This record gives sequence, C-alpha cells and structure tokens, in this order.
Amino acid sequence: MKAQEENTEMLYSHVSVDCVLLGFDEDKLCVLLVERAGAPDGSTDFKLPGSLIYEHEDLDTAANRVLAETTGIKRMRLKQFRSFGSPTRTANPADMQWLQNALKLNIRRIVTIAYLSLCKIYKKSSLAGRYKSTKWFPIENIPRNLPFDHNQIIEEALKEMRRWVESEPSIVFEFLPLRFTAYQLRRIYEVIYNRKMDVRNFHKKMNTLSYIIPLDEWEEDVSHRAARYYRFDKVKYNQQRSRFNKN
Amino acid sequence: MKAQEENTEMLYSHVSVDCVLLGFDEDKLCVLLVERAGAPDGSTDFKLPGSLIYEHEDLDTAANRVLAETTGIKRMRLKQFRSFGSPTRTANPADMQWLQNALKLNIRRIVTIAYLSLCKIYKKSSLAGRYKSTKWFPIENIPRNLPFDHNQIIEEALKEMRRWVESEPSIVFEFLPLRFTAYQLRRIYEVIYNRKMDVRNFHKKMNTLSYIIPLDEWEEDVSHRAARYYRFDKVKYNQQRSRFNKN
Repeated sequence: MKAQEENTEMLYSHVSVDCVLLGFDEDKLCVLLVERAGAPDGSTDFKLPGSLIYEHEDLDTAANRVLAETTGIKRMRLKQFRSFGSPTRTANPADMQWLQNALKLNIRRIVTIAYLSLCKIYKKSSLAGRYKSTKWFPIENIPRNLPFDHNQIIEEALKEMRRWVESEPSIVFEFLPLRFTAYQLRRIYEVIYNRKMDVRNFHKKMNTLSYIIPLDEWEEDVSHRAARYYRFDKVKYNQQRSRFNKN
Repeated sequence: MKAQEENTEMLYSHVSVDCVLLGFDEDKLCVLLVERAGAPDGSTDFKLPGSLIYEHEDLDTAANRVLAETTGIKRMRLKQFRSFGSPTRTANPADMQWLQNALKLNIRRIVTIAYLSLCKIYKKSSLAGRYKSTKWFPIENIPRNLPFDHNQIIEEALKEMRRWVESEPSIVFEFLPLRFTAYQLRRIYEVIYNRKMDVRNFHKKMNTLSYIIPLDEWEEDVSHRAARYYRFDKVKYNQQRSRFNKN
C-alpha cells in the first residue's frame, strides 16, 4: 500500500462496530455478551457482539449485520452513540493475540463505532448466529475484565440509554412485550433511573399518558392478585408528543 | 501491509475528525468553514475544519488539535456526536483529487468522527491557524455543495445541538459573552427552536431561573432603550439542576 509507505504518521486502521444490546430479564437490566473462543490459553470468555467492517460496507449496515447474526432478528432499531479510538484500546497483548488467532489478521489498532439497541429478551434458544454461545448478563454481574474497552463501552451505553429515554420516552416499550403490567413498566423506570418509585404516584402518572392503554385483560395463573395488562399506542404517542413539542 | 494482502475484504481505512463549530453572529446561527485550497482547477472552496488522525493520536485529542489549529483556542468544550463512514462519502472524484493534492496520500475511503462545539464569535482576526482563511457562514447561507458529506454532517450537528441544549440547558451560554441582554438570550432560543417567542413570557421564564443573574449594568451608546445585562451563574445552575434531577 503506497499511501501508507509515503506517510506512516497518519492512522491507517481497521474499523469495527460493537453492539450493546440491552434487555430486561424479569426485573433486571441485562446486556448480551457473546462467547469469545480462541483465547491463547484455550479458555473462553465474553465480549460485546461486534465485527470488523467490510470494505464496501456502511457503518449502520455493519451494525445491523452484527445484530442479525447475534439475535436472528433482521431489523432492530439501533442507535450509533459513540466511537472509541484510543491507541490504548488494543494495548493488551492477550486481546491482540486473540484477534490474530480468530481473524488471521495482523492488527495494530482498531477504531470502533459503538451502537445501542434495546429489546425484549426471548428464550435464549431463539438466538441464532455465528457465535458459539450468547448470554444475557445482568448489568451488576458483568465480568470486570472484558476484552478491549468493552467495559467502558457498556458504561457509556447505559448513560446513552438514559438520555435516549428522556428525549424519546417511547423507547422503553422496546423492552416490553406487546402487553405488559404496570409493575413491569415501573420496574424498568426504577432500574433505568436507579431509584424506587412510589406505586400510587406511578399509577397516577401512567393514567395521564394517553398512549398507555388499559386492556380488559388480566394476568392468569399467578399466585398474587392478577394485574391488569396495558399496551402502548404509537399513534396516540405521536399525537401527544407533537402537542408537547409545540408548547 | 501483510494484513491487508491476506484479507482485502476487511476495511482498512484512514480515519479523520471533522469539527462543526457553531457560533452566534448578531442574531444569526453560524458555522465556521475553512478555505480549501488546491482544488484541481485552482479554485478554492470551503469545508469543515478537519484532519486525518495521527498514528498515535486519540480521537478527542485529534478534535482538540483541529479546533486549536482553527481558532487558536486551546481547550474548547466539544462533543463527539456521530461517525460517518459510508463508502459513498469519498465517491466524488474532485474530492479525491483534492485529497491527493493536499495530503499527498492515496486515499480510498475515510471514516470520519464528527465533533460539535459551541462558541462565542470573536473578531475574525483572532482566528489563528494553518488555514488560509476561515469564515463564519450563517446556517441559511451554507454552500450547498460542500465537499464529501459535510452538508449532511452539519445537518446532523444542528439536530445534536438541539438535543444538547435540552439535556444540558447551560450549554447555550457558550454562545454568549460573560454579560448579555435578555434579547440576546431570547434570539438564541428562537433560532435554535426556529420559532418566535413572546417577549413577556420569555422574561417571566427567565426570572424563574435562579442562575440568570440581573446585573446593575445597562447597555451604553445604543439608539434604542438601553437593555439590562445579565450573567450566567454556574454554581446556582448546578444547584438548581441537581434539585431538578432529584424530582
């Protein structure tokens, strides 16, 4: 490559995407990690789902590809939220050795574009893909020594999720099934904002939101008092938001 | 480069930063563009200030370097907001020819990380730097055919600026001198949200904000009625915000 020989000062780098896929399992916020086989000592550990970008591929296309390969879902709503490009992110020789083993590429530095996506957690068996194994980790149990800067990427993704919910409240319904209980919705807010919410106040607040529709359906086969189901109405949401934005 | 010969499928790319620097000139929102000399026909045109990243440079460091080179200001508050990496962004042969002339590099594709910064507009002479000429363009007069995807980057930066102001209202004071009039502040909001605001309601709103401090100073040498000056109090702002975030 002539360009590089002419001017080695300029960064000439592989580029990757990494996807932080968040979901709610019961009432815990979780992140999806994939098993990384091929560590130098033969061990396995976990990392964010990600991939180098192909020569003719757009960034968003690459992120969609990674999520489809990981979850089997073709079109997920995803948000590019930050690039990570510190020279130190590939400073750990073990990580570099793994790249060498797994990709057969001699890599010095990788700039990665990080994406965030929120989803419902389905049974694990529905996760398709090229990974040996995928696993939902509750946020508080994420291994502390993920490869590269993946711990930092997850931390930034959690901040971004809060900003996203604030600027676009409907995004929380991505976490929920089509019908959900008030408890499920409240738990999501409690976990996102990391504080308890008063049950009665929360119900009052919910009742002011025209886009949360109570259904004539109740939980079945539960040991506690059966809770009512609600659904999210996107049309009403858009109406309420456009009024809100005008004021 | 052996890596690339082994696997040409994977993107191996130059990486750049591009900075969208926004300021208010009188009551117009403006973006700073720099003159691009060396177009194939000898002409000049404008582009966003930007640079390829050096081999051992972090993304944020590169963006700070570009802003310092462009404005002479060493530490500006800046925000990485999006990466642009479409293969089509380097599809215009004229742009590629310019890169070849200006950088003496044989470049095929560039992934760029875009940054946003808001600032006061000082007299143009204070703009230092490696560029032949820099110029503030009112948003509505930006040339439509900026090189690469710079028009799109500016469009995304304007959206990001609105989100930034919503999530962190103090950021608007970056646009203003230390003391400012109610008119100046109102005009900024009017331009950001692209709608007229009622003068009396705006004053009422301002009075509810404990961090906007009226001064015993008034405009001098003006033909209209002299307006009062205000200043922004960061300590009071942080107090009010932390109360707000608790509720």
